[in-house]
Amino acid sequence: MPSKTSSRGGPVAKRRFLAPFAGETLAVPPIWLMRQAGRYLPEYRATREKAGGFLNLCYTPELAAEVTLQPIRRYGFDAAILFSDILVVPDALGQRLTFAAGEGPQLEPVRTLADLGRLDPGKTGDKFGRVFETVARLRQDLPDETALIGFCGAPWTVATYMVQGEGSTDQAEARLWAYRDPEGFARLIDLLVDTSIGYLDGQVKAGADCLQIFDTWAGTLPDSEFDRWVVEPTRRIVSTIKERHPTVPVIGFPRGAGASSLWYVSETGVDGIGCDTAMPPYMMGEAFDGENVVVQGNLDPLLLVVGGAAMDERVDEILELMDGKRFIFNLGHGIVPQTPPEHVARLVERVRGG
Amino acid sequence: MPSKTSSRGGPVAKRRFLAPFAGETLAVPPIWLMRQAGRYLPEYRATREKAGGFLNLCYTPELAAEVTLQPIRRYGFDAAILFSDILVVPDALGQRLTFAAGEGPQLEPVRTLADLGRLDPGKTGDKFGRVFETVARLRQDLPDETALIGFCGAPWTVATYMVQGEGSTDQAEARLWAYRDPEGFARLIDLLVDTSIGYLDGQVKAGADCLQIFDTWAGTLPDSEFDRWVVEPTRRIVSTIKERHPTVPVIGFPRGAGASSLWYVSETGVDGIGCDTAMPPYMMGEAFDGENVVVQGNLDPLLLVVGGAAMDERVDEILELMDGKRFIFNLGHGIVPQTPPEHVARLVERVRGG
Repeated sequence: MPSKTSSRGGPVAKRRFLAPFAGETLAVPPIWLMRQAGRYLPEYRATREKAGGFLNLCYTPELAAEVTLQPIRRYGFDAAILFSDILVVPDALGQRLTFAAGEGPQLEPVRTLADLGRLDPGKTGDKFGRVFETVARLRQDLPDETALIGFCGAPWTVATYMVQGEGSTDQAEARLWAYRDPEGFARLIDLLVDTSIGYLDGQVKAGADCLQIFDTWAGTLPDSEFDRWVVEPTRRIVSTIKERHPTVPVIGFPRGAGASSLWYVSETGVDGIGCDTAMPPYMMGEAFDGENVVVQGNLDPLLLVVGGAAMDERVDEILELMDGKRFIFNLGHGIVPQTPPEHVARLVERVRGG
Repeated sequence: MPSKTSSRGGPVAKRRFLAPFAGETLAVPPIWLMRQAGRYLPEYRATREKAGGFLNLCYTPELAAEVTLQPIRRYGFDAAILFSDILVVPDALGQRLTFAAGEGPQLEPVRTLADLGRLDPGKTGDKFGRVFETVARLRQDLPDETALIGFCGAPWTVATYMVQGEGSTDQAEARLWAYRDPEGFARLIDLLVDTSIGYLDGQVKAGADCLQIFDTWAGTLPDSEFDRWVVEPTRRIVSTIKERHPTVPVIGFPRGAGASSLWYVSETGVDGIGCDTAMPPYMMGEAFDGENVVVQGNLDPLLLVVGGAAMDERVDEILELMDGKRFIFNLGHGIVPQTPPEHVARLVERVRGG
């Protein structure tokens, strides 16, 4: 089936990003950066302007594909990540969502079973379809050697925004609901598990060859809640996706989970573990060794703002620590808007031995 | 010297809060709660109203002592904690600080050596003196059996507010300064170390019989920055205080530090380790065992909002986990304003076997 080979961009082995998942250690690790398509790039700001709003950008395949490709053209990263947002899932389910300019997301909060009842998994087709079209377009337009990462937010993190109605430092409303009425809250989580499975499955069918599950707010939960709302829902997503697509690696990114990431890895079955900026070196260099997992991380995005010798030194430390291991170079959190684009070029050069 | 005995509230042995630091394990652990004097109490709101502003409340010994005593009268906690704020230190150094009603602190940011040069350690006497007067008044007014905890913010956390000019989720400005100009940033940290030592020393001389160092933003730093900006400055404060006051225990609270808290304990020499809500049970119940340290924590403050069986069950789990260990019951973070006061009463009763 030549059409498949061409639509999927050629044999997987061509894509060095995927090599660590196939058990290979590379002398030069693959590199991509969280939020590599973003406001630090002038061409991104121009395209976003043209789209007339952040959600329009996410839902217009031509423009979403364009901003996904921009950092690949500039830097030749080993992987592109679909440009989208973790809140596409609640938006597609029918929760009212807006992004005011310069502010975070605003959602009409879901706090009761009645609110939950108004969400409709049957409605997601149109919006998800546009994302899948973006993925398909990307797989056509990306260089053969560039992997394409699809993604979703983890149910816990997406739920914190859905229940709070906005970003927050303590995710209080979601945590309160989960304590007061764990069965009711579990219905929200279950809905997100099922919807996320369909969403990721569609991305793979459209051409994604790796998936990442972002769990930004995994780190603030007590142990038993971490297990119930982070680990268990992620395990269900990962196991179902792996049944359907055994060769597609899944990276989990439970930000702030620290040493609990070990438990997360062993229980969820992820193939890769994203490490945030604060993940200690002994975890990255040793603790994950027994877990048969690819380690990804973890340069502080603020060192990418600073650049120069301070950045170079830390990059070299990370490379030395992870030398001979199955490793993907990344940041510990997303690129921040004030990052000078030339520092990103220098970083890529440094990682590749320049 | 009977006057000393009476001004210090009688022999230390009377205060069961201090027993774990003297090597004793108690069948019923001592209990106090972070932010036990606060907006959830109607009598606090009335006194704050009378003070006409948060900083006035901190600097008026009669009123600061009153709000410190309020939760002791209601609940009979084993320790009172001086009512004050971690930003008293920059305020006393001359950095402009305001608390607008219903909002967080606003400071005129310190971002250069010139800004730093305008801060004056010679100026702190007046404002610190009012805090010391509050402490002295409290030691007179507190029941003999109630310990009095003094405190300061850790240099790193205080610096994050001083440099950012407000609270933030990522402390970007302080972290950028520390990366760009570590020697310059070290001068700010050094100033805070020295000033904090004088501040804590004065609190002990005025009658505090335990100290806590709050490091709210310790958890977001990469390993080497954690060592340089969290561990090392705290070690200097602790060692100097212990030289001067060998019998006064010091509790460190490096929020979000997770497994790195072990390193923090062994390097700083703190006598007690505050555990946040996300600290895993194996850390609290086992990992700290070899460190000769009192463990304090860590009920989720949101469970105190919820109350009822969900709270009771978690309280019982914590008590069982820490049974037979040198332990102080506390929350994993401060009481939140929407906490029903009767839930606090129920918590105290539960911990005391009611």
